[in-house]
Amino acid sequence: MEISELGEFGLIDRLTAGLKPVNSSTVKGVGDDCAILRNRETDILVTTDLLLEGVHFDLTYVPLKHLGYKSAIVNFSDVYAMNGTPRQITVSLGISKRFTVEHIEELFAGIRLACEIYGVDLVGGDTTSSRQGLVISITCIGEAPADKVVSRSGAKDTDLICVSGDLGAAYMGLQLLEREKIASAGQKDFIPKFEGKEYLVERQLKPEARRDIIEELAKAGIVPTAMMDVSDGLSSELLHICKQSNVGCRVYEDRIPIDYQTAIMAEELGMNLVTAALNGGEDYELLFTVPLHYHEQIEKLPDVKLIGHITKADLGCAMITRDGTEIPLRAQGWNPLAAE
Amino acid sequence: MEISELGEFGLIDRLTAGLKPVNSSTVKGVGDDCAILRNRETDILVTTDLLLEGVHFDLTYVPLKHLGYKSAIVNFSDVYAMNGTPRQITVSLGISKRFTVEHIEELFAGIRLACEIYGVDLVGGDTTSSRQGLVISITCIGEAPADKVVSRSGAKDTDLICVSGDLGAAYMGLQLLEREKIASAGQKDFIPKFEGKEYLVERQLKPEARRDIIEELAKAGIVPTAMMDVSDGLSSELLHICKQSNVGCRVYEDRIPIDYQTAIMAEELGMNLVTAALNGGEDYELLFTVPLHYHEQIEKLPDVKLIGHITKADLGCAMITRDGTEIPLRAQGWNPLAAE
Repeated sequence: MEISELGEFGLIDRLTAGLKPVNSSTVKGVGDDCAILRNRETDILVTTDLLLEGVHFDLTYVPLKHLGYKSAIVNFSDVYAMNGTPRQITVSLGISKRFTVEHIEELFAGIRLACEIYGVDLVGGDTTSSRQGLVISITCIGEAPADKVVSRSGAKDTDLICVSGDLGAAYMGLQLLEREKIASAGQKDFIPKFEGKEYLVERQLKPEARRDIIEELAKAGIVPTAMMDVSDGLSSELLHICKQSNVGCRVYEDRIPIDYQTAIMAEELGMNLVTAALNGGEDYELLFTVPLHYHEQIEKLPDVKLIGHITKADLGCAMITRDGTEIPLRAQGWNPLAAE
Repeated sequence: MEISELGEFGLIDRLTAGLKPVNSSTVKGVGDDCAILRNRETDILVTTDLLLEGVHFDLTYVPLKHLGYKSAIVNFSDVYAMNGTPRQITVSLGISKRFTVEHIEELFAGIRLACEIYGVDLVGGDTTSSRQGLVISITCIGEAPADKVVSRSGAKDTDLICVSGDLGAAYMGLQLLEREKIASAGQKDFIPKFEGKEYLVERQLKPEARRDIIEELAKAGIVPTAMMDVSDGLSSELLHICKQSNVGCRVYEDRIPIDYQTAIMAEELGMNLVTAALNGGEDYELLFTVPLHYHEQIEKLPDVKLIGHITKADLGCAMITRDGTEIPLRAQGWNPLAAE
């Protein structure tokens, strides 16, 4: 069905049909000039992400439902990275003429699925036409008790540096998808070769936000001193934390968690594995620091790795390689505004 | 200066330099995974607008500073339309290669000026490259005491319908700008003919949000039963209020406030003046309903006009023309997803 048959309000009615807020802080969702929220006990967290076709996603190999899911997840991840809980999102879409109502329903199905799984209410947005590609702008509102909010600036000398999951897989997934796109050369019946690399594809196309880590930390009574999510690459994020906390760091190459599929793919592509793990973006894992005395407790947490420690600022930020060499960390992660 | 020289974080540093929050609810602004807000007494209002080059604005005649100003204002207007006060915004930008650092600084100067004048804090956003035109996505967070929030759904039979300012001027300003764009035919030294029509140009390029009306209403102790801002045209907005309040309405043609410049321009273009006032968008005036007993108080408010009254639902929505004919209201306002 052509979107023009429904018009803006008809499309919105269709996309938001049956939405039922699950959070008590959502007083009123879609349908007025503003959404109304009520949050009298805790602090409010706000984050926003803009995703543009051709820059952030390629619809040749990204299914619309996955794209919707991921668009929501990347925002939830930012709220978890403050040790908060995402509660509401607004979704703005710019839609070009090649999309039908069914396409946008697919995209929204992904967004709504992410909201359902993570307990988030879709409370508003804006829907308009776009002259060129698809535009997705999502703002997420979350909450956290004021004394539990974790920023990037609290890391202290001797703190332990921890990271959840593994790194570099989403980046390798992107390389794989791009390789198969080229191999397909537009053939309709082309079957891409993903065998044995399913994990990489999933990490790129359908990432999850680490709510489980936030819950584990809370259960263990640990409030990190600093935290952020790994969206631009470990190096870049570590440098942010160190800069904003006015500290330095040492991370150990042999401690960086890497999945075996990531390693195989790097080998196949002749890429340096550690570089991929340090600078590949979109992992949406949590990077955080905790005081030294949590050492034992952290070691017991499933899916959390200790990768290094914070130092005084004048020692700078470096990785210690397997052979003991110190290499300064540099932000070589994804920079959407860098020269090509 | 090329934006790639600065990169994403360099550009953000430059655009947000010297920002100082003015609202006590802003705990932390730009620079972390999320902004942190604290709002323990009042309800929170959230609205968002997506503006795309070629759809919402034409940089041939829209100066970037004005565009920035307007992008912020349209969001503030939505918060005032809930009887609230805007407090924070996030600004996401998609920037194509033809823009320099200076261009984006101009755009931001307009956004920051609007924030300064309206007392709003810029607390976050996202900045990325765009393959095609400029993309601006702004989310505004406001507040209002829970018992003062005004939605679209509270209008009651016999309520008075009021509107601030005048209508149709922004639409006529757009027609004028488009006419002069065609007349210029790309000549560099072309001087557009705006004499005697400065008000129309200003209404299109640099609208204001009606904070003053909200303040006047509060001073007079009046809480509207329903309210929204006129962004898509009076007809369209009246139909929203009536549908959501389950009522009908009568508005009187001779009561609709129209500036003389709007009338002259309609004459010149051979357009129906009332149609322009009913369906022209982007006025950002406030449309609201109040109980009948406020009649005298409303008449005393400067820049507010009584244009009709609410009826029972079964009477439908209509305009009474000067000669006493009833014409059903139809939403012919701007529909960004309609067929062209």
